[in-house]
Amino acid sequence: MPHFLNTIDARFEARFTEILGLKREDSPDVDAAVADIIADVRARGDQAVIDLTTKFDRLDLTPDTLAFTQDEIDAHLLRVPEAERAALELAAARIRAYHERQIPEDALWTDPTGAELGWRWTPVSAAGLYVPGGLASYPSSVLMNAIPAKVAGVERLVIACPTPGGAVNPLVLLAARLAGVDTVYRIGGAQAIAALAYGTETIPPVDKITGPGNAFVAAAKRRVFGKVGIDMIAGPSEILVIADDTANPEWVAIDLLAQAEHDQSAQALLITTSEKLAREVAEAVTRRLETLERRDIAGASWRDYGTVIITRDLAEAAELSNRVAPEHLELCVEDPEALSLLITHAGAIFLGSWTPEAIGDYVGGPNHVLPTARSARFSSGLSVLDFLKRTTLAKMSAEALRAIGPAAETLARSESLEAHGLSVQARLDALNLAEGEKEKDA
Amino acid sequence: MPHFLNTIDARFEARFTEILGLKREDSPDVDAAVADIIADVRARGDQAVIDLTTKFDRLDLTPDTLAFTQDEIDAHLLRVPEAERAALELAAARIRAYHERQIPEDALWTDPTGAELGWRWTPVSAAGLYVPGGLASYPSSVLMNAIPAKVAGVERLVIACPTPGGAVNPLVLLAARLAGVDTVYRIGGAQAIAALAYGTETIPPVDKITGPGNAFVAAAKRRVFGKVGIDMIAGPSEILVIADDTANPEWVAIDLLAQAEHDQSAQALLITTSEKLAREVAEAVTRRLETLERRDIAGASWRDYGTVIITRDLAEAAELSNRVAPEHLELCVEDPEALSLLITHAGAIFLGSWTPEAIGDYVGGPNHVLPTARSARFSSGLSVLDFLKRTTLAKMSAEALRAIGPAAETLARSESLEAHGLSVQARLDALNLAEGEKEKDA
Repeated sequence: MPHFLNTIDARFEARFTEILGLKREDSPDVDAAVADIIADVRARGDQAVIDLTTKFDRLDLTPDTLAFTQDEIDAHLLRVPEAERAALELAAARIRAYHERQIPEDALWTDPTGAELGWRWTPVSAAGLYVPGGLASYPSSVLMNAIPAKVAGVERLVIACPTPGGAVNPLVLLAARLAGVDTVYRIGGAQAIAALAYGTETIPPVDKITGPGNAFVAAAKRRVFGKVGIDMIAGPSEILVIADDTANPEWVAIDLLAQAEHDQSAQALLITTSEKLAREVAEAVTRRLETLERRDIAGASWRDYGTVIITRDLAEAAELSNRVAPEHLELCVEDPEALSLLITHAGAIFLGSWTPEAIGDYVGGPNHVLPTARSARFSSGLSVLDFLKRTTLAKMSAEALRAIGPAAETLARSESLEAHGLSVQARLDALNLAEGEKEKDA
Repeated sequence: MPHFLNTIDARFEARFTEILGLKREDSPDVDAAVADIIADVRARGDQAVIDLTTKFDRLDLTPDTLAFTQDEIDAHLLRVPEAERAALELAAARIRAYHERQIPEDALWTDPTGAELGWRWTPVSAAGLYVPGGLASYPSSVLMNAIPAKVAGVERLVIACPTPGGAVNPLVLLAARLAGVDTVYRIGGAQAIAALAYGTETIPPVDKITGPGNAFVAAAKRRVFGKVGIDMIAGPSEILVIADDTANPEWVAIDLLAQAEHDQSAQALLITTSEKLAREVAEAVTRRLETLERRDIAGASWRDYGTVIITRDLAEAAELSNRVAPEHLELCVEDPEALSLLITHAGAIFLGSWTPEAIGDYVGGPNHVLPTARSARFSSGLSVLDFLKRTTLAKMSAEALRAIGPAAETLARSESLEAHGLSVQARLDALNLAEGEKEKDA
């Protein structure tokens, strides 16, 4: 049974706080094993990666077969049915169009002292994208990670994707091809992360690593953070639907289940002003769960973490939603735009009943890599900005230095940083000297 | 003796790679102690913070004295000399003006299918800024962290700054006041980070923690990452100066020392096309080191990590600089703009000889919290964006869903996510049904 709450109940606040604090993930502690794997790859390079791939993926590689050749990729692509190719192409085009609008602008201006100030954006030179093997090997995630990198201008973009026992998902290779990925390595786990971060004889190191993975991959990403940049460590996924009595209970029920079917630690929440809708949605979920292919996973998620909350009004619903800071937020209400203005923390908002969250997973355009586990309070989904960095620019003229240099000297002295002050003073002395000469000449 | 290299030497590449790999920091392993402190603060709240402050800072607090009152702050501010107040005010105004230009724009557009797409930026609700006590208690860093947060619109901004034995730096309090900080807590170390991340009876939790600190603070920030957002963990600082024969060797020498005086693990590098300048700068550094107040620190840094490289031309200098990816880069050359176009990785660029790096530390305008230890390859200095997050927006019309929904269904099926597909199909079925009715009526 999911959790049923009503904000008019005396115990509401206590129960809601409890749901906010639910620990939905029990990641095994693999940190020691991961530290050993990383040390092994740093010490033995290719051979360590090859040995570990034999051990974990039952696949024997050589330095020459660590990466797919373009011919091998071409051969696999022949296996992709036409409908799926067309769907991936549509998705890639829409994701690219959305992300191209995210390219930020450089700036350069002159301030009243004559100082030139600004900044300039440049891409990360090389990025590595981790793609899980097996069941969680999602071609859509390849597009969502690789396209922003290429739009940002990343020159060398590589994928690490394990192929356990040699099993290859041709759609992953097609997504990589469509996104412009340069190389696909058939390696996985902590050994792949170590190889990408530190490099081996065959695999050049990258500067940034993104993409989802299991506990070993997550622990390895945490460990190499600092040596390279990483994206957020993803937690279990969640959806929150705010609905009023105009919403279609069947659609809301399926949308909740589309989240629940991901993972038994996924969470689906409904907040509604309508008791009738709440009841109808709960019934529809129960009915759909009887036949859903992934009913075991979705059923466990709904039973353990599913939540239905009745609120007095939509403003109260928005307030509770902001406290959840959901990864995905659907607004199935009569005026979704008005309600959206009350939302301050959410990874992605889906407005109105024609916008099921699944559209955002594939073809909407916005990124589906979003902040999980309440981290939308302080972070954003993946974007072009994750593959760019900003260099600030400053150029003083002699006049600008004369105007603001003395304040820098004062502050340097107050922080006991003598050379900082001297570096300004030496220049001001030269200016004063030059001026003195000029006056003498005059 | 610093390292002297020349790109025409046969052993250059090996020596340069060695310098790139120099490990400049030996942070003590305090992780176990920090884990205990965090657990203690989570379990005992205020009382743990109070006990740990007595132990580490020799200061006895109560829940009522954890924060400075506004009256206490007013009293301390009376001690600030007029020149320092004016200098801090100038710095605050310039930093604010620069960072106000960083506020990103929201976007909303309608694509050819009729789908509305876009994004919206919102501020983090509450942020905490760590300010070290004692010698490293820099008022300039308060401005550099607090002003971007307030410009971003952070509603509640607090500072944690230890006051060992009760010693207060009034300039830190003035900087906090000028930047609009709401509350200043006189607590420090891992206990302060734990209190900010998890909250206590008296201290409400924040969503994001930034600011520098010692090994305990850094380890605590790593541990609470995920529960709250954090900024980069700062490593030892570095400057790289590229100079041609038009540069003033005395100025370059002081600029190198202004970096070296920070910390004996700071690094100062000079890359120049002029052997004469290289010699003159090295001599000037040696001479200045005889009288500099912080000559022990600066001397050790220059001896262990100082580096002078002669290159064939400026293009080669830029290439080497990009491999270093320095935190601070000074271009003391005849045409700094032309050279700057060759720079792809640097935290901040200071163009021309009138722009000593110290200007950027205080009053230039750009942020002085910059990526250290070669991380400018993949990250940026602190900015308004660090206190904002982006929510993506998508709204399908019935027509848009008809246009792109089938592709989403196809991809959902290929990823074995049935409910994802059903959530689209249910809506398309309703559309087709409605259309059928219309045709029947017609």
